[in-house]
Formats: sequence, C-alpha cells, structure tokens
Amino acid sequence: MQSIRQDGNYSFVFSRYAPIAATVRPGETIEMYTEDAFCGMIKEETDLPSKIERPGPNPQTGPVYISGAMPGDTLAVHIRAISITRDFGISQISPDFGGLQGTHFTAMLNAPLENRVFKYIIDGDRAYHPIHRHLAFELAPFMGTIATAPKLEAVSTMTPFEHGGNMDVPDIKPGNTVYLPVAVEGAYFFTGDCHARQGDGELCGTAVEVPCKAELEFEIIKTMKTAWPRIESPTHFMAVGSARPMEDAARIAWCELIAWMGEMGWDKMHAYQMLTQVGEMSLGNMVDTNYSMVAKIDKRYANAIPGASRRF
Amino acid sequence: MQSIRQDGNYSFVFSRYAPIAATVRPGETIEMYTEDAFCGMIKEETDLPSKIERPGPNPQTGPVYISGAMPGDTLAVHIRAISITRDFGISQISPDFGGLQGTHFTAMLNAPLENRVFKYIIDGDRAYHPIHRHLAFELAPFMGTIATAPKLEAVSTMTPFEHGGNMDVPDIKPGNTVYLPVAVEGAYFFTGDCHARQGDGELCGTAVEVPCKAELEFEIIKTMKTAWPRIESPTHFMAVGSARPMEDAARIAWCELIAWMGEMGWDKMHAYQMLTQVGEMSLGNMVDTNYSMVAKIDKRYANAIPGASRRF
Amino acid sequence: MQSIRQDGNYSFVFSRYAPIAATVRPGETIEMYTEDAFCGMIKEETDLPSKIERPGPNPQTGPVYISGAMPGDTLAVHIRAISITRDFGISQISPDFGGLQGTHFTAMLNAPLENRVFKYIIDGDRAYHPIHRHLAFELAPFMGTIATAPKLEAVSTMTPFEHGGNMDVPDIKPGNTVYLPVAVEGAYFFTGDCHARQGDGELCGTAVEVPCKAELEFEIIKTMKTAWPRIESPTHFMAVGSARPMEDAARIAWCELIAWMGEMGWDKMHAYQMLTQVGEMSLGNMVDTNYSMVAKIDKRYANAIPGASRRF
Amino acid sequence: MQSIRQDGNYSFVFSRYAPIAATVRPGETIEMYTEDAFCGMIKEETDLPSKIERPGPNPQTGPVYISGAMPGDTLAVHIRAISITRDFGISQISPDFGGLQGTHFTAMLNAPLENRVFKYIIDGDRAYHPIHRHLAFELAPFMGTIATAPKLEAVSTMTPFEHGGNMDVPDIKPGNTVYLPVAVEGAYFFTGDCHARQGDGELCGTAVEVPCKAELEFEIIKTMKTAWPRIESPTHFMAVGSARPMEDAARIAWCELIAWMGEMGWDKMHAYQMLTQVGEMSLGNMVDTNYSMVAKIDKRYANAIPGASRRF
Repeated sequence: MQSIRQDGNYSFVFSRYAPIAATVRPGETIEMYTEDAFCGMIKEETDLPSKIERPGPNPQTGPVYISGAMPGDTLAVHIRAISITRDFGISQISPDFGGLQGTHFTAMLNAPLENRVFKYIIDGDRAYHPIHRHLAFELAPFMGTIATAPKLEAVSTMTPFEHGGNMDVPDIKPGNTVYLPVAVEGAYFFTGDCHARQGDGELCGTAVEVPCKAELEFEIIKTMKTAWPRIESPTHFMAVGSARPMEDAARIAWCELIAWMGEMGWDKMHAYQMLTQVGEMSLGNMVDTNYSMVAKIDKRYANAIPGASRRF
Repeated sequence: MQSIRQDGNYSFVFSRYAPIAATVRPGETIEMYTEDAFCGMIKEETDLPSKIERPGPNPQTGPVYISGAMPGDTLAVHIRAISITRDFGISQISPDFGGLQGTHFTAMLNAPLENRVFKYIIDGDRAYHPIHRHLAFELAPFMGTIATAPKLEAVSTMTPFEHGGNMDVPDIKPGNTVYLPVAVEGAYFFTGDCHARQGDGELCGTAVEVPCKAELEFEIIKTMKTAWPRIESPTHFMAVGSARPMEDAARIAWCELIAWMGEMGWDKMHAYQMLTQVGEMSLGNMVDTNYSMVAKIDKRYANAIPGASRRF
Repeated sequence: MQSIRQDGNYSFVFSRYAPIAATVRPGETIEMYTEDAFCGMIKEETDLPSKIERPGPNPQTGPVYISGAMPGDTLAVHIRAISITRDFGISQISPDFGGLQGTHFTAMLNAPLENRVFKYIIDGDRAYHPIHRHLAFELAPFMGTIATAPKLEAVSTMTPFEHGGNMDVPDIKPGNTVYLPVAVEGAYFFTGDCHARQGDGELCGTAVEVPCKAELEFEIIKTMKTAWPRIESPTHFMAVGSARPMEDAARIAWCELIAWMGEMGWDKMHAYQMLTQVGEMSLGNMVDTNYSMVAKIDKRYANAIPGASRRF
Repeated sequence: MQSIRQDGNYSFVFSRYAPIAATVRPGETIEMYTEDAFCGMIKEETDLPSKIERPGPNPQTGPVYISGAMPGDTLAVHIRAISITRDFGISQISPDFGGLQGTHFTAMLNAPLENRVFKYIIDGDRAYHPIHRHLAFELAPFMGTIATAPKLEAVSTMTPFEHGGNMDVPDIKPGNTVYLPVAVEGAYFFTGDCHARQGDGELCGTAVEVPCKAELEFEIIKTMKTAWPRIESPTHFMAVGSARPMEDAARIAWCELIAWMGEMGWDKMHAYQMLTQVGEMSLGNMVDTNYSMVAKIDKRYANAIPGASRRF
C-alpha cells in the first residue's frame, strides 16, 4: 500500500501551487498520515498556542495527484479507515476565536476569553479529560479537512468552501464516501485535521485534535455534476454547504441535495416537499471563516421512482 | 380530565390581552384540542391557501391560566400524549414563504414559486403522499407552537421568541418536558400547530399539518431561571434559541444550555469545552420570522460533579 | 394647536391595546411632547441605568387616533418641527447591548463592557461632552421611534418593524414626511425617543437622548400601497427595511423603494438597474432587535417617464 | 512616467503566485491601464455575458512589486487620477447574481432573473442610458478592486478581504489614499474593475463598467498597523470591513476605525461613544462573496487630544 507522509512539509492552503506529494491511481487504496491542527506542537496544557509560533493551522497532507482526474469530473473518496496515532488529543479555548465570543470576523470590543489548553487522554475507544474522568466519551474519528484544489485560488486551511476544505463534518468518517468537484487536472487532493471526537458546531473552535493515518480509495466519476461536497453513508445521501450567515450554508446544502435528488429522478418541487417532512440537517462548524451545514435524506425516502435504475 | 376546546375562537398572538380560556392547577392533567395551521380550511389539494381567506396562521388554543404562576417563575409543561384527530395532513409550497425562496424578510425580485397543496394520507402510525405511497414515513407528532405570554408584547403566532412560540422543534413531543419563562401572573399558556411529522428546518415552510388533542400537565418551578425555552427528554437537556441570522439562534441556544449546566454545577468554561466535544445541535425551523436552533447535551455527559445532588 | 402630553403614562409597546391618548383630524397640526429613552431618570453621569429600575425603554407618546384612517390606507406624517426641551442629552455604554459587543440576541461568553453614562451639554445648536469640548457637534434632532399599531401584535418599543417603530433613522426629521401603513381603524400613531444627534448605526446603542416637542401634521392617503415605511425629503424618496441579518434589512428597503418607483411608472428591472448606479443606502441602527437600512434615490433620477403625471 | 499595461495577460486572483508585471519605487508616480470587468468582451446590449466565455471576472493589472515593502508594513496608495479610456460603459442584470435575487451563496429555488445588458453612453462628465437620456448622471470613477497579495492564499478577484480586493467602495477615488496591509515582500499590488459610476451596494451586481488609466503613487509606512483596509480623504478617516453577514462587515469596519483612532490617541470607549454620535457608514457592495461596509469619521471630530502631534 502506498504510504504518504510529509513530515514538516505541510501545506497551509488548498491549491494547485504546491508541489505534488504523490500520485495515485483510481482504485488503489493508500494511507495518508496527517499531523494534528497544532502541527504537533502542543503536548501539555501549559503549551499555550497563543505563545507558540506554529507555521499555520490545520497542516495538510497532499496534494495527491489522482491519475485521470479532469476538470468537471467528480472525485469520490472512499474512507476505508482512520487510525489515531497518538494516545492523547489536544483542545483549547482560544482568544478571539470560537462560536461564543467575538472573533476576527465578528469583531467586538469585549475582552477576549483567556487561552487555555485541554489535554484529553485516549484510552482504548474512549477519551476523557482528567478533571472529568467519569465523563469519558467514545471516540468517533473523522477528517476535519478534505479537499480538492480550486481552479485558480489558494484557499486557507481554515476555510470550508465549494471543494470541501475545513468543513469539520463528523460524517467524513470510515465507511462513508465524500464526493468532491475536480477543478484541475489530477484533482490535487488534500486531507488533514483529524478529530478524535467533536460535537456539532465544534463550538469553542477546537475539537479533540489528533494526528492520524487515513486509508483512502479514490474513484473518478465522469457523470456526476457536483457543485458542493456530497457525502454518502450506508444509510444517507448528504450535501454540505459552507457560507455565512448560517442560513446561507443551510440553503446551499439543501439546494445541492435537491440537485442530487434531481439526478436520481426527483422533480424539484417534490424533493423540496419530501425534505420538508423527512430531511435532516446537522451543523459541521460554526467557528470557521465559513459555517458548514449538512443536509441529509435517509435512503429509505430517496427512491423517487420505484424500480428505476440509478447509480446509488 | 379538564378538556379545553375553543372552536373558531382561536388566538393569533401570544399575549396577555386575550380572554382566559381556562384555569388549570399545577399537577392536574388536562387535554387541549388544537386546530391545524390552516384553521382546518384546507381539505383537498385544490383548496389553495393563497385563494382562501383564513383568519390567521397557526390558531392557538389558550390562553390557559395556570394557578399560582408568578412573573419570574418557570412553567414546566409535561407532554403526556399527542393524538392526531384527523386521517389526513396538509402541507403546501407557498409563494414568498419557505426556506429556499425569497420571502417577506429576505426580499427578492425573482418570481415566487407557485402555490401547491400536498395532502398526506394518515394510515395507522404512518403517512404518505399518494404519488409516493412506497415512501410512507412514520408519524412523529409534536406541538409546533407552545408559549407563555410576554410581559407587554403580543407576539404573532408565526414567531418563535424568548417564551417559546412557533419554534417548530420536534423534541416538543410526548415524554418530554418544556420549560418556559413566566412573565405575567397565571403564565397565559398557549399551544397549537401540531405537526404529524416534520423534517429538520421545516424546509418549505409547512409540515404535515394536523389538528390534535394534547394531554399536558403543568408544574411551577420557583428555582429555575429560564431566559429561553428549555426541554428535557429522558436522555437529553436542551435549550432553544430563536433569532436571525441562524448563527445568533445557535449562540443563544448554546449560551442558555451553558447557563443551565451552570445551575447544575458546571464551570462555564468547562461546559463550553465539553459541549465542543459532545454537544448536539438541531434545527427547528429556517422559515419563520426567527429561526430556531436547539442545543443539546446527552445526560450521560452532563453530570459535572459525580454524586452531587440536583433536581435533574 | 392641540398639545399631547402624557406625563408618566407612556406606552412601551406599539399596539392597539393601549387607551387612546388623543384624537386628531387629518390636516390639523398638533404638538406631541415626548420623554427621553430613559424616561427622564438619568440626569448625571453617576446615574447608572443598570442600577435604576425604569418602567421600560423608549417611552411612547400616543396612541393618537387619526380620524378617518382605515386599514389598508397609508398615513403620511409631515414633520413640521422638533424642539429639544432640555439643555442636556444623555448617552451610555451599556453591558450586553450595542453594536460592538455580545448582546441578548448575539449571545457571547465574553465579559460585557462596563456601564458608563455620558452627559452632553446642549449649547445653542451644538452639543459637546465636557472631556471633548473642542469637538462640539451640530444638533440634528429626529424621532427615533415613529409607528402605527399592527393589526394584532403589540411590538416592543425597542423594535423596528413593518409599521415603523424604533428605526433610529436620522431622516425622520423636520421638513420630511414619513409614510406608514395603517392596520387598524384610527391608525394608532405613536412617537418618541428623540435623538439630538446620532451617527449612522447608533453604534453603542444610545444616541444623545433628549425629550422634545414635535410638531406634526397627518394626512391619509388612500392610493399608496405601503408595505414598509417610506420617507420623502425635498430631495429624495426613501424606504426603510428592518430585519436581521443586515442584508435582509437592505433587501427589504431596496424592494420597497423599487415598489414605490413602480407606482411612479418605473419598470421593475429598469428601477433595479438605475438604483445600482445612483441609489444610496444608509444605516439606521445596528443595535436593536432588528437592524434598519434606508434605500434612497435622488429625485433628479426618479422621473422615469418625462412629463408623466404623478403624485410626487 | 512608468506605464503598466498587460493586454490579455491579466490575473484573476490576488496572489503572490503570478509573475511580477512591474517594479515600482515608493514616491514614483506611475500609470496603470486596467480592462473592464468583462475583459472588454461586451460591446453591445446583444452581447450577453451568459453566452460569452470570458477568462474570468474583474481582470487585474499587476502584480506590481513595490521596492522595499516588507511583511508587516502598510502600503499607502495615493490615487492621483483616474481617466476612463472608452466612450461607453457596460452594466448587466445577470442570472443568479446580485443583491435582490438568489445567488450561488444565497441559494434559492426560484427561477433566476433574465440576463440583460445595459450600455451607457459616456458624454463628457456624464453618462446616460438611451432609454433614460433625461436622467444622465455625473461620472464618479473609482477603482472597484485594489489589493496587495495575501501571505499564502490566492483570492478570487470577486472577493473583498483583509487586503482589499473587490470592495467596490466609491471612496477609492482620485484625491484619496488607500492603506493596505503588506503580507509579502514587495507587497504585490493589483488594481482593476474601474466603475464610471456606482450607487451604494452595487445593487444588481454590476456598475457602469469601464477600462481606465489610473495614476498612482505608493508610499511604505513602517509605523501603521493595518489589519483591514483604511482610506483617507481630505475630510475623513475611513476603514473597510468585508464579511458576511453584513453586520459583521460593519463590526469589522467600526473596530478597525476605532483601532486607528486609538493610534491617534483615543481611548477605545471614548472613540466608541464618539462614533455613536458622529460616525458615518456606507455600503460598498452587497453582491460579492463578502459584503463591504465603510466606517467613517469626519476629521473635524477625530482630534481627541487638542494639539497632540500625530501623523494625520
């Protein structure tokens, strides 16, 4: 199995301008090693991020060149496994960052919250913070960032956007498939920012941040028209919108899901009506430069035309 | 059991200005009959709401005077049962209303969507639309509106606000308890707008609308300081924020849940951190005059201080 | 001239539920005395509002019953004069309120700003704060609140809405006319919250607050279809939208102005295009429960069809 | 005078990745020729942009390398003159774009508006559309885009951001100075997207678009700490915030202006209070990927400490 590491040589933008880290063929399963959101520089609760100069947030492994991927295609990323490669995770409350305080974009005059690190002990399939050992929670690792490169832009690894990026969506986990638009030849695939566990919204701005090894398999789809990221789980079809204000992220996600349902044979107004009664919506993050919302439909309700042949 | 009906004499505002419909003692279980959001005037798909003059949307049963409720108290409403009292439900796509088109408040120059009624057949514990009979879904009835009266305002039954109102939150269902602030003596309780089933966001603006009979029991709590509605289920503590933009609804919900956790012994920063890793958030509606978001914590993670005695 | 005062007996909602304070005929000029936003209870910088219990914010004089006003009409309010009736104005920075800190609706965990009163000396046609006497600014008094009653709701005097309310728009000043929708017989007119001077946005939440005497003349227009407040100055046509997020307030204001231009003979797409090149937009407030934006067109550019006869 | 043209070889991102177009020394006045937002491809009202494949929107002239500019510096751009180099300007109403319809980011199901081109005749210091010749308006040319390169990102020329970009702020005009943060050695300066005239908000998304020649002089300031673009006119200090929702753009602009006032000797709370009474705010655009708001203070009110020595 091809193994992709790039110790110390990470990208802090999703872009075509970085040198290619590896080339992969569709159908080949590879493993990618990713560093945590702090570049591995925070090891103890006394290591305050506000006092450490890190090269950037959310270091990315990649770009991976996918042979045969052409602009206009969709890149399907099958997530086979995610293994956490450290026995602790790091979170923090950070000044001028997070969902419940003033930030760079929601500028305020209030004094910011104090910087504080939380080190979680990973113990088997659970993690806990020492002050709340009785509140150990199950791990549910997923990739916080996953993206292809835009046509011309170089997008910060803090940002979720049309091609994925820092969506912080817990559904990007083993067993699921992520569909991303391809804008440049070779797709230029990136991933990183693994979270051992995260609640909806990644509220304070930092989940239980860990390095990991991700096993992935790529597929190139010529027939799917993906404007925003889509996700398929064994039970659901999903679409992710990333924007501000949050209702615009929601609108994008629903419209992309309706577009997908249209590809499956749904009339647009019937899909709109059906989602009203059975659709589901979850919140990726409410802390990044764009917020991410996920619109979902249970596959039990997605089969518009009984017996119709379709890909899914 | 006291039975409250007010055929034809509904309220279209949550307010202290309406005549009292009934008086109820804490601890007494009552039943309240509510009409559907269309005042029962839509019976067929050819009855277009845009052509029918109804007295108002979301007719409310109430106000119910709760003996002993005083300003500053919290009214706990235990929802014992909800029975749908009709064998069909009505939804619609409406011009200039709903989550994915221009509206009165998100004013646009585009042509509005056409008015279209969808009549759902209720068959046992499931409902279906005739064009998608194979996609029958399970019923999950809940009260779309539930509220106490504000101190001075009279709030439209389209609006969710600090005292509840048109939150369209599916967790307001049998087995759960809703906690509402009391602003006037007697609380002036209202409910209505039962939904046989609704997806997250009530996307097109209208769920499967039905009349119902709700069985409720009231409790007055002198010690809980409720700024925004709270909900308790067997498994979760929740708080509801209603505002625009949607991120402000989310912020309110999280802050109210953190306040509640504070009442249970949590340090504010620890609660903020814990919710980041295990908190849940769902969307009530993204179509009303305010959007409603629900912040939740599983009770397994809410016990800050092991062994501490507390109400919940 | 009829003089309307209601010392101590103010309304804190815009509603039809309050007893009528006076009845006025169209064409009659009246004077209305209004109290300042603090009910006159703050006289020195040591009088902290956070420590004083006032009956409510923005006390309103009214409701004034306008003879002959019927639902569906437009009430034109000609503002003849505003006289400040005190030699000082009061402002404050308030905890959990204002444009640049967390608030009740933009809930945050940061510590709030400290409460601080600023007393301005009014000296002829200028005012100054003693610490910046060299920065005296000109007075530009206007009515912060002006409204008719809604059909059923009672709206807080903190809120700007379809019928006006707490818009905090400096164009509501002597020489200009405000057009308001009429929803109840007699219109139920209110005004208050005079500002001796205010910058765009009323940034910290409190302008130079003063009591005043306003001279007003009313006119009932049967032919104008006003969905949101409109303003006419000698040089401009304007419309006010009040909503959140701020872009929705802007969208409403532009759409209402385009509707008005339509009544003057403009094709909707041409109006949209013309406003793109010559339209003006200002910010009423960014601190209240809704934000207010004002869309404007210079009358020099508003004459779509040369020589066409129209009201304006 | 050095003249910078790059016919056909424009940049469609603000970035350090493009080859340097010219090198300029501080104090040197240069002229830069810019193409219109449509790459000059629309010449008649029958040339529909939706049917023409242009390389991108808002072609940029640059990057210009400013000798001596280092990361952390501020680049002052003195706009000496802007000459329109064509006798007509092009605007359009575009499907799925603009302030009053659904867009890529405010996704809607409504049918989009039809594409329509408006060709304006430029006649001396005025322009008019043939259907409204009597409504000719004065030209007020300014640069819609002006930026330095970010540290790592490549930002679309549709986007306004921390370093300027597509702000569409009419104050970026002859006689004024724009202050931009420098993130890379040489600053990498870009400009383009000249508007012969634009209303507040650039409502439909396209102003009167023209090619131009801009005369500029650069200055490097080592002592000013610019987080977001600042503008100085003979009468005002200004700061530009670009974000969504619009209130966040406003908050950024006010906070940056308060920071600037702090550099001039103002206490933060006094500046906040003073702006509440005399501050001004205008809207750059409400149509791009971020909205731009401009906070302003008249220099008459900006002198906190009489007689204090300061740069401005």
